[in-house]
Amino acid sequence: MKKSLIALAVLASSGAAMAQSSVTLYGVVDTSIGYVKGEDSVSGMLNSGNATSRLGFRGVEDLGNGLKAEFVVEGELQPDDGTAGGLNFKRQSTVGLSGSFGQVRLGRALTASYNAVSRYDLFGTVGLGSTLAWNGTQTGYQNRSNNMISYISPKFSGFGVGIDYGFGEQEANRTARYMGVGATYDNGPLSLGLGYDKQNNGLAAAGTEDLKTWQLGGSYNFGVAKLLAFYKNTKYNEIATGDDVSLKSYNVGVSVPVGAAGEVKATYNNYKISDNGGKANQFSLGYVHNMSKRTALYGTYAYLKNKDGANFGLNGAFTGVNGANDSGKMHGLQVGVRHAF
Amino acid sequence: MKKSLIALAVLASSGAAMAQSSVTLYGVVDTSIGYVKGEDSVSGMLNSGNATSRLGFRGVEDLGNGLKAEFVVEGELQPDDGTAGGLNFKRQSTVGLSGSFGQVRLGRALTASYNAVSRYDLFGTVGLGSTLAWNGTQTGYQNRSNNMISYISPKFSGFGVGIDYGFGEQEANRTARYMGVGATYDNGPLSLGLGYDKQNNGLAAAGTEDLKTWQLGGSYNFGVAKLLAFYKNTKYNEIATGDDVSLKSYNVGVSVPVGAAGEVKATYNNYKISDNGGKANQFSLGYVHNMSKRTALYGTYAYLKNKDGANFGLNGAFTGVNGANDSGKMHGLQVGVRHAF
Amino acid sequence: MKKSLIALAVLASSGAAMAQSSVTLYGVVDTSIGYVKGEDSVSGMLNSGNATSRLGFRGVEDLGNGLKAEFVVEGELQPDDGTAGGLNFKRQSTVGLSGSFGQVRLGRALTASYNAVSRYDLFGTVGLGSTLAWNGTQTGYQNRSNNMISYISPKFSGFGVGIDYGFGEQEANRTARYMGVGATYDNGPLSLGLGYDKQNNGLAAAGTEDLKTWQLGGSYNFGVAKLLAFYKNTKYNEIATGDDVSLKSYNVGVSVPVGAAGEVKATYNNYKISDNGGKANQFSLGYVHNMSKRTALYGTYAYLKNKDGANFGLNGAFTGVNGANDSGKMHGLQVGVRHAF
Repeated sequence: MKKSLIALAVLASSGAAMAQSSVTLYGVVDTSIGYVKGEDSVSGMLNSGNATSRLGFRGVEDLGNGLKAEFVVEGELQPDDGTAGGLNFKRQSTVGLSGSFGQVRLGRALTASYNAVSRYDLFGTVGLGSTLAWNGTQTGYQNRSNNMISYISPKFSGFGVGIDYGFGEQEANRTARYMGVGATYDNGPLSLGLGYDKQNNGLAAAGTEDLKTWQLGGSYNFGVAKLLAFYKNTKYNEIATGDDVSLKSYNVGVSVPVGAAGEVKATYNNYKISDNGGKANQFSLGYVHNMSKRTALYGTYAYLKNKDGANFGLNGAFTGVNGANDSGKMHGLQVGVRHAF
Repeated sequence: MKKSLIALAVLASSGAAMAQSSVTLYGVVDTSIGYVKGEDSVSGMLNSGNATSRLGFRGVEDLGNGLKAEFVVEGELQPDDGTAGGLNFKRQSTVGLSGSFGQVRLGRALTASYNAVSRYDLFGTVGLGSTLAWNGTQTGYQNRSNNMISYISPKFSGFGVGIDYGFGEQEANRTARYMGVGATYDNGPLSLGLGYDKQNNGLAAAGTEDLKTWQLGGSYNFGVAKLLAFYKNTKYNEIATGDDVSLKSYNVGVSVPVGAAGEVKATYNNYKISDNGGKANQFSLGYVHNMSKRTALYGTYAYLKNKDGANFGLNGAFTGVNGANDSGKMHGLQVGVRHAF
Repeated sequence: MKKSLIALAVLASSGAAMAQSSVTLYGVVDTSIGYVKGEDSVSGMLNSGNATSRLGFRGVEDLGNGLKAEFVVEGELQPDDGTAGGLNFKRQSTVGLSGSFGQVRLGRALTASYNAVSRYDLFGTVGLGSTLAWNGTQTGYQNRSNNMISYISPKFSGFGVGIDYGFGEQEANRTARYMGVGATYDNGPLSLGLGYDKQNNGLAAAGTEDLKTWQLGGSYNFGVAKLLAFYKNTKYNEIATGDDVSLKSYNVGVSVPVGAAGEVKATYNNYKISDNGGKANQFSLGYVHNMSKRTALYGTYAYLKNKDGANFGLNGAFTGVNGANDSGKMHGLQVGVRHAF
């Protein structure tokens, strides 16, 4: 995504003094026509099939001596109906300082654990083709935390680490808090990522607590094709039964450039739930045609098959067909445009 | 409304490459002091008496070969209390491609049918003087649709067409969908517009379905004065009774420039409901004084008279006096300032 | 707070004519780590410890002859969780005209009465160290009004006046309306402020009506230190009992510059409620280190002691400990960063 830089002249309210600064207004509008068929079928308009539609403001101030102050506020857009519920900045709202030591940052943001591994989903965890591994609704996983203090290290020989602590803000400090760490290694064609995180009670999925996740992934770019894979293992406790439940998923993907502007991508996802033995397989196929660095047309086809009573649904599908279905199968197709500014 | 163009330098995140682009931040703040008298009277502050208060972001990217990518996200402001309910982008949220073929656009926007004819209301369908012909609360008409795919033709010898399809996103495709077409002809002093649209169930007015509208209008600018007129015929089905109801309205107006910066405008509206024979007449008188191209002072007086049990109220009046009243009469006065940026 | 000026070229939609104008995008992101101990203790992330986090847009248009059109829309940010409830413009939404006569402005804004005196709280009425004198939750006072027409005089020899009238927009004009006046005198090291306002029923604190406030304050800058003080006396009627209640509070403060970039500040607040004789004392100590004109690190410690059954809590504390506690004591500590753009 390219960013638009608004040239700014920061004017001291007292008058003469003038310094250079910058605030960046940026965003994405991504909308598609979609068709999803499960037990029933629905066609309509879907948001964010290739990248999450968003509007954000961010800035960097040079404080001297290599120190910088940085802020970001970024909210999601739903262009099909004009941002139902109103604009907020729940994608990211942070302020921090950065320098040779790395970055220290306060506020709501994606976690380092999620960032380290989610980048190996070729569908960018959006749209019908996305993996469900981090789908909050279907796995209880939260990829962001409120009230988070984060440290992001500088890169040493391609190696970097991020550490997050999200306050629960309860009398008992343990309640609702988030803790996690993510490590990445990027060197030429090779990329590796590893994450661990733990969320205490107060989770997205009601009736559960102590969600712990191990995840790792990697990719290698051979030039003619890029191969990617990740594995995610989440455990949580069901409060009513006291049982531990595990959600294991893995994904393998391949991306092939087509001409100067095209990309074909295909992924296979496997999901397994421990307690009832439910399973699902998902196959996603996509094509992206870049009309420029900022604008692309894309098409995605995804197929999901539930087994043994599992009840997964394609990511971002229409409400009516997002749940279970008799046949255990779901097909999805979307064709859209993504424009970044 | 003038638009403010923010000069932008789009910076590739990878570094050196730099291209010219533009994102426009624009808006209107329009606030007035108003007095409305029906059975009771209320004075206070009204929004959007001359133009709808709004905040928007939009941009165009040149893709080469005459092709452009375009986006708009625009939300309404309520400056009297600071946007109660929060900022959304429900006025327009679209992304599309345009070129010599016209424009294809996805998302929420005004419909072509509404755009083709509503432009003949001299009060711009806002404020106390506005026609009630398209008032959603009072007629069930919706001038925007969610989930809409739109085609807007280029202009051929002053003639243009827009076609809209809004997905209902239900299992039964017919439910809640929108379909419409608008045609316009603009040539020198003459302007004509024609629209047809159909909304299935899931309408703004509960208990009704299958709202169909025919509408047409026109204007001629004689220089010393501009004459305008439109006619709108809406039919819908009352689910409980199965009866068809029709709402017929027409409007005639005249606008006279006064000096270099002033405009006097007057309109007469007639409304008629088929099922109970209710009727209403409305007379609106306005003056706009342009202090610049962006800023204007304005005053509006409107008088509405209900007959035969009709229950119309002036557009945008205070809540307490917006309904029926014993005398069947309503007077409204507002004086305000409109500032576009 | 410095403001960022976006250089804009206003383009007439008709083409050639081009005029200079400006829209300013500005804001603050202020986030801190806090610890508050009352009966229980909570640690977590707090917003706006040094300045209220916000995002705003404003502009000025020169209309010639010294006349200007001005608008502001400004909303609060909650960076710890990304603006829960969505972005609105409830901090300020106004449009107005200004010139040699002063400014006339319509919309929602801070009142002149509040502005005249609140500036003598060294903690800027934000964060744990803030005075509670104007805390809406704890005193029923409203420092803004909807539907407000305001006149702000130019400065004559350091003297200025602001007058506000906020429509209640009810059939009975008296209901829910706001009226107030604020006067200020600023001359070299001396600053004085005086305010009176009256809010009829429809107040923030349910079950009360006719809230009347007298307030005055002042400061003197000796160079090595600045001394500040204010007094506020609010009376309202409890509807159920018919009793008049008074809330009296005073504040004294001292601010001492430390080096080129630092400021130490200390305040003492005394609160007294008439009807039950409840009282509270508050001591606040703060340090602000300015890393630049736009960015600061800060730390605040505050101590509050309730007596005779009073139930005050530190401003902006976590929900769980914001109420009363057995010991009647509350301690608060916060360390954060404020970045203005």
